[in-house]
Amino acid sequence: MPVYRNVSEVPDPVDLAIVIVAAPGVPEVLSKIGERGVRHAIIESAGFAETGEQGKALQAETKRVLEQYGIRALGPNCVGVVNTDNGLSTTDILDEALIPGNTAIIAQSGVFGNILLDKLHLQKLYISKAVTLGNRIDVDESEILDYLHHDPLTRVIMMYLEGAANGRLLTQTLSRVSRDKPVLVLKSGRTGQGIAATASHTGSLSGEDYLYDGMVAQTGVTRAKTLNELVEFTRVFSSQPLPSGPNLGIVTGSGSMGALATDAAVIAGLEVPPLSTSVVQEIQKNAPGWMNIKNPLDIGPSGLFEEALRAMAQDPTYDMVLAIFTIPHAILLNLKALGVDIAQRFGEIKNLRKLAPGKPLVVCVVGHDDFVALAAELAGPDIPVLTSPEMAAEALAALWRYRQWKERSTS
Amino acid sequence: MPVYRNVSEVPDPVDLAIVIVAAPGVPEVLSKIGERGVRHAIIESAGFAETGEQGKALQAETKRVLEQYGIRALGPNCVGVVNTDNGLSTTDILDEALIPGNTAIIAQSGVFGNILLDKLHLQKLYISKAVTLGNRIDVDESEILDYLHHDPLTRVIMMYLEGAANGRLLTQTLSRVSRDKPVLVLKSGRTGQGIAATASHTGSLSGEDYLYDGMVAQTGVTRAKTLNELVEFTRVFSSQPLPSGPNLGIVTGSGSMGALATDAAVIAGLEVPPLSTSVVQEIQKNAPGWMNIKNPLDIGPSGLFEEALRAMAQDPTYDMVLAIFTIPHAILLNLKALGVDIAQRFGEIKNLRKLAPGKPLVVCVVGHDDFVALAAELAGPDIPVLTSPEMAAEALAALWRYRQWKERSTS
Repeated sequence: MPVYRNVSEVPDPVDLAIVIVAAPGVPEVLSKIGERGVRHAIIESAGFAETGEQGKALQAETKRVLEQYGIRALGPNCVGVVNTDNGLSTTDILDEALIPGNTAIIAQSGVFGNILLDKLHLQKLYISKAVTLGNRIDVDESEILDYLHHDPLTRVIMMYLEGAANGRLLTQTLSRVSRDKPVLVLKSGRTGQGIAATASHTGSLSGEDYLYDGMVAQTGVTRAKTLNELVEFTRVFSSQPLPSGPNLGIVTGSGSMGALATDAAVIAGLEVPPLSTSVVQEIQKNAPGWMNIKNPLDIGPSGLFEEALRAMAQDPTYDMVLAIFTIPHAILLNLKALGVDIAQRFGEIKNLRKLAPGKPLVVCVVGHDDFVALAAELAGPDIPVLTSPEMAAEALAALWRYRQWKERSTS
Repeated sequence: MPVYRNVSEVPDPVDLAIVIVAAPGVPEVLSKIGERGVRHAIIESAGFAETGEQGKALQAETKRVLEQYGIRALGPNCVGVVNTDNGLSTTDILDEALIPGNTAIIAQSGVFGNILLDKLHLQKLYISKAVTLGNRIDVDESEILDYLHHDPLTRVIMMYLEGAANGRLLTQTLSRVSRDKPVLVLKSGRTGQGIAATASHTGSLSGEDYLYDGMVAQTGVTRAKTLNELVEFTRVFSSQPLPSGPNLGIVTGSGSMGALATDAAVIAGLEVPPLSTSVVQEIQKNAPGWMNIKNPLDIGPSGLFEEALRAMAQDPTYDMVLAIFTIPHAILLNLKALGVDIAQRFGEIKNLRKLAPGKPLVVCVVGHDDFVALAAELAGPDIPVLTSPEMAAEALAALWRYRQWKERSTS
């Protein structure tokens, strides 16, 4: 690619300037960009409001230059944007992170956005756009939310926030966006010391945490308690339909995992109702004597995974189904050595997605890493495989809460 | 191995009988075992009290036979024991699960124990003994706890419980054991529907959940909220010393991860105090201008990981240190391609364990799976690498709570 000494030398057209010079040089560089007639910039440099008084003054000076030339800017202290539709990335990312998907990321922190992109594709969560905001000298989260609201390639929005640029505007925007697309938010700065940490990170005022809880309740946003929860919930939101009721059916290879998932589901607001008589009869046909035909349905080593899952997915009693796969790995390896087709043992899981189009389906696997990978293969692209029974149940509960909010807010 | 048609034909000595015949045949087989003079049995067969009235009667009949011959038995509805010291396993497990370690598992459920053994070795958590209890017709969790209390190869005990066989006895036993060895408990049957699930699983009466919360508070037990928490906390308990105070130092490559860990630590009862002047001066020597020298210490892309960690680990202000490693994976791959030694970039992390022998050290990595594996290599066998900043902070807080309980209970 040709490289130029000065922005004035770059030939037309220039859509975007990416600024990565050391912080003190940023206002001058932006002036040159403005003179050149470029009206969009991403300022990646750090060393502004997040570093104290001197940095705040530098940020004010930078803002003045932006306003003088009418430049719209992201940053400073960010890594810009990723757009998988046209393959644009303003930061150095893996090729796999550019596989297009339906989920948008808004991250206040650059590194946060970057490392999410490193791991999400490994969990089959693919991205439409990713935007890192940094110190928000100009463009803020509400403006990006509005953009993603109207982006046809984005179905779900996940967001990491340290503090709102404008809390009232954010609340209004989230209420509007949530009616059409689920928004999942992880917010730091929940404690005094956490607030201090965010202030020195992106120069944010985090605000009182209870205000955010209120905002979440009003706007239909799903608030994640942890980073893992943000990721796992988003995987379920981006791949599953919304449930039409609170009733969860659980098929499990381990009674203890079934009990843990049941507890988590009930605590999170779901119901785990008994099996209908017809399903009991259906499963009883092939079930061994020791099997308790109940919900959660512990199939133990009966090998009846597919039959049980199919029966539950088709039973109108259930609005969603959780399948917990477990098998002692030594037994799996023995079966493999004997030439048994492992896929057959668990059944054509990926076909269930079509069989019960209106019901969220989630697989949970607890065990050896190789078995987790195998289950991900069996489940295909449309059924997420989680590794925590409690998280799987809580993700389904979040889906149901969002569905209820959506109904209330649009009726 | 020679195989016999009848237990009476097996030559001396017989230390243990493992019973895996279908449930209705168990009493008769146990009679023969008793006649043969064998006094220890593991009954793995399922189909007893967990299946209803008929199964309850069968379990009572089985108990009568055990008492008649004075046979001590584990089970039924379990997979028995693993002893890594002598390589005994009464269930089919991977060879890697037999690598000896300092952590004992007590699991009410057989499958639960089995699948934990499949995954723990992948996280460098190695086992001394594992015991699955099943329906506890004879030996119960309190007896096993007493045994492990005196087992010199066991330092930490992790436990999955659906309900206590004898709540009063369990409380007394836990109080006694906890004074010497930390016990971590995951309990299911927290909700009405979860209780129903455990009843049909191991025939347990789970009891009211608040009673268990009381028991936990009294006995110094660490109660895990989820299966992942049980595993991650145990990894930290089994490898780290107890902290002598609540003060946590955090070094991070990402400000957002630092803020998330700070929030979680403070909510869980830790302090995140400022850096001492001497540490600030020490780090300032090589730090770039944009770096905020604070706690949590966000070193950004400065490469000062080792210097910062070393300074914090040696500063008496801090009772424990959390290191959050992040690096965009594309940059890691670029550095590798340029021949940069990645280990050097993060420093001799494994040496820190010796440098600060009295302080818990935990590494957290968020990013690509390959980077997690690399960090695990750099951290060595004595520093656990977690993948959730919140979980890492909460595990350290649990360590501090246990230390406080221990001091109160022994003073």
